Amino acid sequence: MVLVDSDVRITAFSPGMKAALKARPKDTITFRTLDCWAGKLSPGSSDIDSMDFDELNPATGPVEIEGAEPGDTLVVEILSIRPAETGAVSVIPGAGVLGGQIGSSSTRFTRIEGGFVEFLGFKVPADPMIGVIGVATADEDGPLSTGIPGRHGGNMDTKDIKAGSVLYLPVFQHGAMLALGDIHAAMADGEVCVTGCEAQAEVVVRPSLIKSFSLDWPAVESDGSLMLIVSGKTLDTAVEEATRQVVALLSSSLGISSEDAYMLTSLAVDMRISQCVDPLKTVRACVPPWLCEIAGFSLKAPRSEG
Amino acid sequence: MVLVDSDVRITAFSPGMKAALKARPKDTITFRTLDCWAGKLSPGSSDIDSMDFDELNPATGPVEIEGAEPGDTLVVEILSIRPAETGAVSVIPGAGVLGGQIGSSSTRFTRIEGGFVEFLGFKVPADPMIGVIGVATADEDGPLSTGIPGRHGGNMDTKDIKAGSVLYLPVFQHGAMLALGDIHAAMADGEVCVTGCEAQAEVVVRPSLIKSFSLDWPAVESDGSLMLIVSGKTLDTAVEEATRQVVALLSSSLGISSEDAYMLTSLAVDMRISQCVDPLKTVRACVPPWLCEIAGFSLKAPRSEG
Repeated sequence: MVLVDSDVRITAFSPGMKAALKARPKDTITFRTLDCWAGKLSPGSSDIDSMDFDELNPATGPVEIEGAEPGDTLVVEILSIRPAETGAVSVIPGAGVLGGQIGSSSTRFTRIEGGFVEFLGFKVPADPMIGVIGVATADEDGPLSTGIPGRHGGNMDTKDIKAGSVLYLPVFQHGAMLALGDIHAAMADGEVCVTGCEAQAEVVVRPSLIKSFSLDWPAVESDGSLMLIVSGKTLDTAVEEATRQVVALLSSSLGISSEDAYMLTSLAVDMRISQCVDPLKTVRACVPPWLCEIAGFSLKAPRSEG
Repeated sequence: MVLVDSDVRITAFSPGMKAALKARPKDTITFRTLDCWAGKLSPGSSDIDSMDFDELNPATGPVEIEGAEPGDTLVVEILSIRPAETGAVSVIPGAGVLGGQIGSSSTRFTRIEGGFVEFLGFKVPADPMIGVIGVATADEDGPLSTGIPGRHGGNMDTKDIKAGSVLYLPVFQHGAMLALGDIHAAMADGEVCVTGCEAQAEVVVRPSLIKSFSLDWPAVESDGSLMLIVSGKTLDTAVEEATRQVVALLSSSLGISSEDAYMLTSLAVDMRISQCVDPLKTVRACVPPWLCEIAGFSLKAPRSEG
């Protein structure tokens, strides 16, 4: 069991990240994470506007995964996410879908208890998820703030990255260098106001490796579906790239033409919004369980190789 | 029981549409619909490029609903959708998300049987839905091709518009003037290749009215969720308007500020893609069942008034 505390953290994923700790495939790793405000937002100190935004969205880590090399896939089984007992939801001028209508920052603090986020007395079902999770970036991508999503993962804000799911990240650097943070106790697709229920948390994962195989973008396996997670400047360009990716994957897995895979995607692969409020927008192309089965997407299986 | 056959059809929703037939609230109306190709695509005649695109996407109707006046809501309970035994999936150069990669049109004909669409031997679960359904447009919107979605409904290509769902359409003209067509035996969110499994069909609906109340955009109640269906030039602008709409609705229904409703939307209201391939893109803001209950969205209930 490896424990990484929140004092070991990054605010950018970069090609040359130095490991804070090492873990072996199949080790259990516990990450203690600050919230997206780096722990600086509290009922007594809720002045978002004066914060140093470069310090925000910290990810705990990175942890070097022994044996991980460029071209491999890092498989991250998410065993549990335990958020703290309080969270915060904020609006910020200029941020989020309706940011132009927000005059000044404000925050609602919430209690997280018994499976619910208590917001204004409403019981919002809690469904804890990891906002930021990723690995060292490719040399050509350079350093990327933890606020940005990309091929390396990062701020994907995808609610299927939750306990019970399995995340697949392309490895670009020796040791992979896994880091994560920005847990939301609840968040809907879109994350329209720019925050979910932001909370400190303890996250337990188990890494493993698929050697000499990787997808171009991260993917998550959740409830039997395989979802390719793709980001772009707009939702429309993200959907375009996600379509290209899933068409290529189905074409090669099923041995059918690109045109047939394109048609099949139109019939069966839901394009879903993950978030539309970060510097790049994120969507996921969701291959349903019956099609995963036919296409042989048992990505989980090769974990025994790790 | 009112029957409208597919020879009675339109290719544009307009302010001055003339009724082909009349129905009373609570009548059962059966619409026989052509497919999006106006019945002109068949294994023996599959030349899409030479088709007259102005004739395509026909909607059967319109039917005048007695008592419907501007400012009311037309409630359409969708009782059943029975697609024909064959359908078609097509790709077209320049259309769809990857249209730039398509050199020439091509079509796969499919068998629809036993709850499945047989595509290349794969059994795609059938989930029949209505692509085009709408009413006469507002004077200021003028005539709109049945290929376009808007405040009047139209080509929303939203897969929750299916049997068992209840659609709410704003009434802009005397008699509402309901028309529908473009049934898909299967379609995934996005409809990325520009078609679903296009099929002729028989659709049975029951209209009713909510007097002197209407939303700004169509909405559908499906599986206990209320979904506002909003279209825009891009997915991003559609999400922005959908957010504005749902925030206003939650704010007034719950008696909370716009900022609080905005936060609650971020926590609990999924923004989902309906389609991203029509002249305007369509998304839906999905208010989950628990929140519909708290907000008192029992839109179905007032149907007894109709």
